[in-house]
Amino acid sequence: MVRTMEWQPACLVLLDQTKLPTEVTYIECKAYQRVCQAIQRLEVRGAPAIGAAAAYAMVLGFKEVTDLADLEQTYARIRDELIAARPTAVNLAWGAKLMYQAALDMKKAGLSRQECYHQLEALANKVYAADIAINKKLGAYGAEVMPENAVILTHCNAGALATCGWGTALGVIRSGAALGKVKRVYSDETRPLLQGSRLTAWELLEDKLPVTTITDNMAAWTMKTKGVNMVVVGADRIAGNGDTANKIGTFGVALAAKALGIPFYIAAPASTFDFELVSGAEIPIEERNPEEVKTFQGVVSAPPGVEVFNPAFDVTPNELISGIITEYGVLQAPYTEAITNLHKKVLEEEQFTWKV
Amino acid sequence: MVRTMEWQPACLVLLDQTKLPTEVTYIECKAYQRVCQAIQRLEVRGAPAIGAAAAYAMVLGFKEVTDLADLEQTYARIRDELIAARPTAVNLAWGAKLMYQAALDMKKAGLSRQECYHQLEALANKVYAADIAINKKLGAYGAEVMPENAVILTHCNAGALATCGWGTALGVIRSGAALGKVKRVYSDETRPLLQGSRLTAWELLEDKLPVTTITDNMAAWTMKTKGVNMVVVGADRIAGNGDTANKIGTFGVALAAKALGIPFYIAAPASTFDFELVSGAEIPIEERNPEEVKTFQGVVSAPPGVEVFNPAFDVTPNELISGIITEYGVLQAPYTEAITNLHKKVLEEEQFTWKV
Repeated sequence: MVRTMEWQPACLVLLDQTKLPTEVTYIECKAYQRVCQAIQRLEVRGAPAIGAAAAYAMVLGFKEVTDLADLEQTYARIRDELIAARPTAVNLAWGAKLMYQAALDMKKAGLSRQECYHQLEALANKVYAADIAINKKLGAYGAEVMPENAVILTHCNAGALATCGWGTALGVIRSGAALGKVKRVYSDETRPLLQGSRLTAWELLEDKLPVTTITDNMAAWTMKTKGVNMVVVGADRIAGNGDTANKIGTFGVALAAKALGIPFYIAAPASTFDFELVSGAEIPIEERNPEEVKTFQGVVSAPPGVEVFNPAFDVTPNELISGIITEYGVLQAPYTEAITNLHKKVLEEEQFTWKV
Repeated sequence: MVRTMEWQPACLVLLDQTKLPTEVTYIECKAYQRVCQAIQRLEVRGAPAIGAAAAYAMVLGFKEVTDLADLEQTYARIRDELIAARPTAVNLAWGAKLMYQAALDMKKAGLSRQECYHQLEALANKVYAADIAINKKLGAYGAEVMPENAVILTHCNAGALATCGWGTALGVIRSGAALGKVKRVYSDETRPLLQGSRLTAWELLEDKLPVTTITDNMAAWTMKTKGVNMVVVGADRIAGNGDTANKIGTFGVALAAKALGIPFYIAAPASTFDFELVSGAEIPIEERNPEEVKTFQGVVSAPPGVEVFNPAFDVTPNELISGIITEYGVLQAPYTEAITNLHKKVLEEEQFTWKV
């Protein structure tokens, strides 16, 4: 199985996703700052993966808390630095805040600094393991709504590489493939950083799944002419009404799917929901460096003086979404109600307490 | 003004569009085979430009007709070789057939071989000059339907570089800008060969027009969030019912424009219409080398083993089109009627007779 990250004693090892598919190299992060940098550079990317990476970064960051008396101040600073690394994915903040709150609780419960460290490490490992388990559950639910002889279109990479393993959208595809339902996967290359052609194509080929790479502007025509009967993508943040922020291009794919009568699914764990947000209008959209658009793998592709608009995400309104596949089942419209119920279930379960 | 091609005695000089925007270099074509190659390699591209290039290639090819007795056989072979260079754009066949028919008529009228050559050369020059004049007419009609403070999205390059000068879609933009109507142009980069970021951005910057480059998957989000109030693109072939083949990605843009209530225009000269075709379903769609999708300028962007689908064009159904801007005015639905009327006008005018 593709390993996105691995925790070693006081070191988070990350697969460098900017180098794929031509090089498989790893980055050793011994300080939380290096994880921050990796998140910014997209060496690790994908909402669930950066949620887990943030949890491990908080373990690394705990080394700076030399005295528990400074915990609140020092650890809050590290938490906020991590959260600021990228603004859109809610899992990043989720992972960092979870660890921060757990540390406060541990201190309150009278644990020593050393005990806190070990408990935080155990909690991050729990986040990591839970992510894989969640994706497998979510994948099984997704496979249920997948048609037989599925011809699936996906955008960006919501795969093993975007998570701790198995994947969300690609987890659905893996689970469907295990049932013999997947005929072919069309993977949008996903400019500017090509997560589709570099990562999705790579990891599906690694698993010997039938994948065809297309450029982003081929999506609508492929859907119309190649018998696509399901679209499934991941998510970076889902508002309380189901509006979904995901990699730029998702909105266009959703519009085409709607016009062509093809079911369009989001696959995402409960940690991707921002239950506080009323609608997608409130989701901050990261704009990235124009150079990403003006070059292609380092080769200049536009005149130097040209202006660029480079939003990393867009928001797909809930009315374009056929269902949101989660580890608790497939949510359907009316979404505000379905998501309120999901929130209740999440609060009841309290999966990520630090008591181990 | 940007010059796409220039005729010199017995030599067609082409601006090498594969090298833009980093290099401005020219190719000297002294034989029709080199023009064929240039069309295949996209060194010259854009439906009207390859129509004119084909006319000049037929002038170069006439050198192989060493005896007028062989005209039909030899010249038909050259014509068919040119037509086979790319299957989708109708202007290529239009230019080659026009020259072939003119040569037959000249022979019939008793012209000598030398006289034929000079008349063919004059006719190709007429095609070239007429293209620029046509684009200016078309541009003026397009500027009339352009809103004030136009924020325009365009796809691929239907500019001076795609024609003999001025452009079709970009001709509309140039004519609108001359009236002070253009606030900003968003230009899709247009993978795999990036005609948008390499060519459209380059030629609009040359003309000091306000242009912003985006990746193809940003089109829908840009339309929704940046106040886009007009989409205008070119065409490679238009069927009798208005269904339009244009650069891959046009269909997705048209679907998004429809969903967002933004007027979507095609800008194309009458030579782009294939009056024989009942609908777009009959338009052959060129599929190009998979390597175009798996690389950019030689840099690998996908795993070597991955399958690729690489259609160069798609077909936008007539119901998504707000109007087709031609040199005879702006056609509107019902298109079959409008295009039948256009056909009558074209036949009445007989612009490209060889009698000079």
